[in-house]
Amino acid sequence: MTSDAISRSTALDALFNPSSVAVVGASADASKTGGRPVAYLQKHGFSGAIWPINPKAAEIAGLKSYAAVDDLPAAPDAAIVLLGAERAHLAVRDLARRGTKLAIVLASGFGEAGEAGMARQQQLREAAGGMRLLGPNTIGALDLHSRIVLSASGALEGDDLPAGGISLASQSGGILGALLSRGAARGIGFAKLASTGNEIDLDLADLIAHYTADADTRVISVYAEGIRSVEKFRTAALAARDAGKPVVVFKVGRSEFGARAAVSHTGAMAGEDRVYDALFRQCGVIRAESFSDLLDIPAMLASGRRMAGRRVAVLTSTGGAGSLVADACGMAGLDVPLLDEATAAKLSGLLQAEEPMTGNPVDVTLAGVKPEIMTAATEALLASDRVDGVVVVVGSSALAQPEIAVEAIRNGAARSGKPIVAYVSPEAPHILRRLNLQGIPAFTAPETCAVALTAAQPLAPAGQVSTAPLPAAPEVRSGTLNEAESRDLFAHFGLTGAAQRIVQGEAEAEAAARALGGKVVLKVLSQAIAHKSDVGGVKVGLTTEDIGPALTAMRAHLEAQSLPRPEGFLVQKMLSGGIEFILGFRRDPQLGPLVLLGAGGVMAEVMGDSAIRLLPLGEADARDMVRELRLSKLLDGYRGGPRHDVEALIQAILSLARMGEAMGERLLEAEINPLFVLPEGEGVAAADGLVVTA
Amino acid sequence: MTSDAISRSTALDALFNPSSVAVVGASADASKTGGRPVAYLQKHGFSGAIWPINPKAAEIAGLKSYAAVDDLPAAPDAAIVLLGAERAHLAVRDLARRGTKLAIVLASGFGEAGEAGMARQQQLREAAGGMRLLGPNTIGALDLHSRIVLSASGALEGDDLPAGGISLASQSGGILGALLSRGAARGIGFAKLASTGNEIDLDLADLIAHYTADADTRVISVYAEGIRSVEKFRTAALAARDAGKPVVVFKVGRSEFGARAAVSHTGAMAGEDRVYDALFRQCGVIRAESFSDLLDIPAMLASGRRMAGRRVAVLTSTGGAGSLVADACGMAGLDVPLLDEATAAKLSGLLQAEEPMTGNPVDVTLAGVKPEIMTAATEALLASDRVDGVVVVVGSSALAQPEIAVEAIRNGAARSGKPIVAYVSPEAPHILRRLNLQGIPAFTAPETCAVALTAAQPLAPAGQVSTAPLPAAPEVRSGTLNEAESRDLFAHFGLTGAAQRIVQGEAEAEAAARALGGKVVLKVLSQAIAHKSDVGGVKVGLTTEDIGPALTAMRAHLEAQSLPRPEGFLVQKMLSGGIEFILGFRRDPQLGPLVLLGAGGVMAEVMGDSAIRLLPLGEADARDMVRELRLSKLLDGYRGGPRHDVEALIQAILSLARMGEAMGERLLEAEINPLFVLPEGEGVAAADGLVVTA
Repeated sequence: MTSDAISRSTALDALFNPSSVAVVGASADASKTGGRPVAYLQKHGFSGAIWPINPKAAEIAGLKSYAAVDDLPAAPDAAIVLLGAERAHLAVRDLARRGTKLAIVLASGFGEAGEAGMARQQQLREAAGGMRLLGPNTIGALDLHSRIVLSASGALEGDDLPAGGISLASQSGGILGALLSRGAARGIGFAKLASTGNEIDLDLADLIAHYTADADTRVISVYAEGIRSVEKFRTAALAARDAGKPVVVFKVGRSEFGARAAVSHTGAMAGEDRVYDALFRQCGVIRAESFSDLLDIPAMLASGRRMAGRRVAVLTSTGGAGSLVADACGMAGLDVPLLDEATAAKLSGLLQAEEPMTGNPVDVTLAGVKPEIMTAATEALLASDRVDGVVVVVGSSALAQPEIAVEAIRNGAARSGKPIVAYVSPEAPHILRRLNLQGIPAFTAPETCAVALTAAQPLAPAGQVSTAPLPAAPEVRSGTLNEAESRDLFAHFGLTGAAQRIVQGEAEAEAAARALGGKVVLKVLSQAIAHKSDVGGVKVGLTTEDIGPALTAMRAHLEAQSLPRPEGFLVQKMLSGGIEFILGFRRDPQLGPLVLLGAGGVMAEVMGDSAIRLLPLGEADARDMVRELRLSKLLDGYRGGPRHDVEALIQAILSLARMGEAMGERLLEAEINPLFVLPEGEGVAAADGLVVTA
Repeated sequence: MTSDAISRSTALDALFNPSSVAVVGASADASKTGGRPVAYLQKHGFSGAIWPINPKAAEIAGLKSYAAVDDLPAAPDAAIVLLGAERAHLAVRDLARRGTKLAIVLASGFGEAGEAGMARQQQLREAAGGMRLLGPNTIGALDLHSRIVLSASGALEGDDLPAGGISLASQSGGILGALLSRGAARGIGFAKLASTGNEIDLDLADLIAHYTADADTRVISVYAEGIRSVEKFRTAALAARDAGKPVVVFKVGRSEFGARAAVSHTGAMAGEDRVYDALFRQCGVIRAESFSDLLDIPAMLASGRRMAGRRVAVLTSTGGAGSLVADACGMAGLDVPLLDEATAAKLSGLLQAEEPMTGNPVDVTLAGVKPEIMTAATEALLASDRVDGVVVVVGSSALAQPEIAVEAIRNGAARSGKPIVAYVSPEAPHILRRLNLQGIPAFTAPETCAVALTAAQPLAPAGQVSTAPLPAAPEVRSGTLNEAESRDLFAHFGLTGAAQRIVQGEAEAEAAARALGGKVVLKVLSQAIAHKSDVGGVKVGLTTEDIGPALTAMRAHLEAQSLPRPEGFLVQKMLSGGIEFILGFRRDPQLGPLVLLGAGGVMAEVMGDSAIRLLPLGEADARDMVRELRLSKLLDGYRGGPRHDVEALIQAILSLARMGEAMGERLLEAEINPLFVLPEGEGVAAADGLVVTA
């Protein structure tokens, strides 16, 4: 970008609200892709100027057609370039020269298409100069409130696209079209939608920032194949969150095959998927687990209603579906508690039951499914201070009079601000659409009701990152540090190891063992040996008597393997009564430095029990990491066992994070395995440490 | 049931193919529940005799109405009883006396409705005598091939219910209706459907057995809230499997809330959900994880096509959706490999690409989405011997000419027997329906494509159970056995413990330690102390020198806690170099005796790493249990470590299962924790055992 570049916000204003639009390569045939943008602009009621550019046509769709960009009466606010990858840069150059704010390049065949494509992409970037670009490899952008459709998406063939509170940023144009058409059929309305494609300029984070400031947007949906700039994304996502606009992301590439497909689709950068999980968590982003959740969770959040707790009441006229919903809620970690007495009494009065109706789901079958009863029962459940949200099941009885059924639910919801969703049990797309249009999120899967209500819980505030000055990093040499060097480095940042002595021979070892007291561990000290236990370089449970012969035997054993002569041996106090964790630091090639906490030894890997967070991380993040591990159940006095020093573990995580920040690019890798978390008040102790520096 | 009871098969023949049907409590108003069965029988073209019974009407829907069962011209084959819970038994009594084969009782208010309901249920059972009953609390049954609809389900309002290969047994009537109407909208056809409700007579297993013998049924779907007779279910499910008819079950009640709801809905019996998992696995039943899977997996299996391996090719005209499908397949454990050279060359010829198209997903965007290209590309992928199944993505380009798109896929599939499914990316219910009706399973969720293809893999053969005679069970006393007694009992069945001695004092203990050699463990021997380590009754790592003082100290420590005087002490050889498992036996109150294998110590619980199987179990089941555990990764030489004795572990599981079978009701609980699995060839050793007998 040159210094006189159009600002991102000016460009995005032009994208979603242009006064004039040039369509380069417009076709007179509306059934062709090249004919769609003009046709769609007209069809959906764009009131600004449309300037088709096509040297071979005099008129397109009743509009004057221009031979070239230079012939336009003025610089257009925005332009759509429909030319192929070989020629798009020419139009972009002309548009930029003319003073266009933003151009949308639809063609594919750029960065995602090998070396030749990469060269074309660079050419395109240079042609744009200070003009902003959306794409290439994009389907364009839409604003359903102002009816501005700068897009060739076939989804715009539909006539009835409801406007609503969800704005979408998608790296894929096909996905944008799929979500738009699926939403329209279900009565789920969008505000703004844009696909960013190869993102040579404007990216997902730019759209998130724009939507955060947009009055029509209540929820931000994101379809991502990869995040190009982590810092930019983090900043935009945190700002959206602070503005009270939830960000919901579906990211493809959780499996190697999906990742490979994404790279070849929009040239997205791969990164380890669980690091993305950490990123999203740290930004307060809700990650959609299944693709349909990317429509359903935003539909829920757009209602603006939020759960104050986890307690759900289910109202049903069909027992089986009520069980399905209750079960799905339970599986998602929500509660479906028995009802309080006051509510139960209200319901039994309403339904003329002989006994108080404490049951949940509340089955209204016996009373017949009368609309006034549904309304009153819904109201009663929402009014209970033991209920945080309600699911109303729409059974086949509603098929006969869909309007009445929908009205009954809407009326029941009117006096409460608590979340209410509908589960539609039989096939009834018209009821689904009507409910959504009336502001009652309605779903066809019981699991989705649970997912939606879970997402409607208030987000925990984003972890505050410490602003205390970082300790200075000490001088260290480059390469793999030996255990004593690693230990000193860790200690510098507050991570202390078990008491130990470095020794060279039997007599020294015996003296060390005596001084340390109790059982000791003997380890070879060598920067050349990474996995000491694999070569017989670790022996545990030794006494003062055992240690001399053990050292001699270990030395002989190492020599027999022709291993390099060690720097010495460590005699370490043997720790017991603690729980073993692994605490590590490493760098994700795409997303940057991170801290890992896991079950000790090989258990983190074998049991898949580990948690990661990107730097910078705060105390709340560290606490969250500890909670995430299954092993952590042992920390709080499991089965009558002792409580362990959780606070010391949290401080250890923060210490390692500070070490990573203080050392910057110098720190490549660090690991303490095991880190013993000792009984409450006794802290933690690092038994074995490894550091690799640049 | 009396000895002259109608057989189940006679009754089910009458249910699905009656020559005459009595409708007790029929109403002349077709909009009321009481009016529906006669209306539906007529509407869907039932050709047999319909006999409405209603003393207040002379004629119903053009048919003569009878005042009472006794007035009917003959005994009806089947009857629907529409009376309420208070009066249903009277009609049932009359129908039984008249010689009706089967009656369907729709009313609820029986076993699921407290004590009064339970009494009515008993009354109903007695009234039926030798006549068979479906229900109560059922919506009835349907056969879509012969168009026989003995049901009041509102789903029958639909006109266009396609007949197909899926037969459904559902404990819930509402769920039956939901699946029927959802299937019809999607073009997924059913053969027979029945809801069993409270199952006071005919149950899910009876329907499974009937469907197994039914020529129209290719796949059996089951919606279950609880299995009442495990043995009957197991027998029916295994027979269906042997007949090549897959059984797909969705069982509600995975969470406590769902279980509670199910109990109050159809009086289903609760049982621990993961024991159901074991039951289904051992019967070769496919468990649907989400409710929609109960429609989607059968739709896939009804196509008859089966995956020979795990390799999937994805053909797409829209990159984003291709990534979604590839990712979902990867997450489900399928492979989406690069294509072989021959196939890649074929595709590049077809698509006029410059280089061989080894990529997968195969993106045909650049070539334009012409039907003949889609057909040829589909054929090429299905023809590859490196591809086991294909997903074709239907993008928005298909919306313009849906028939042509559907034909292209169908033609591409015609020459191959391999599975092919369609993922429909934009909203396009008409395309979805058309594809399903043409035999191409079509889905709207990428995850469903993966679930369906996974389910289409051939099932592993059911584990053969050993028929070898069981060893005789030795005499044991009742109650909690002490460790030595438990050890003897385990040893009797081939489960040997670590070498040990029982001792009473210091001198004996020293002699024992010397004889055993190496380090030893000292444990208190007491049937009164269940958790020895909690009271300081276990000390590990002792030498010949340590053990005397340790015994004296332990005795004093136990006395100080006023614990009962122990029977003595155990000196046990200390095991090392093994991997610790827990191996246990217990009884599920609903589903019966089972064996549990888990990670040793508290790790099975903390890490959730355990596997269970019901008795009887065979070697394949035992092997499957071992594979199921994450801990088992350590058995096969993890990270260069030693291989461990897997075969001995499998024999240990089988030994405990034999012990459970041989001891029958006497064995309440048994547990070995830890069970050391030693290096290959060295077997396993039980370090600590507990047995509770009746």
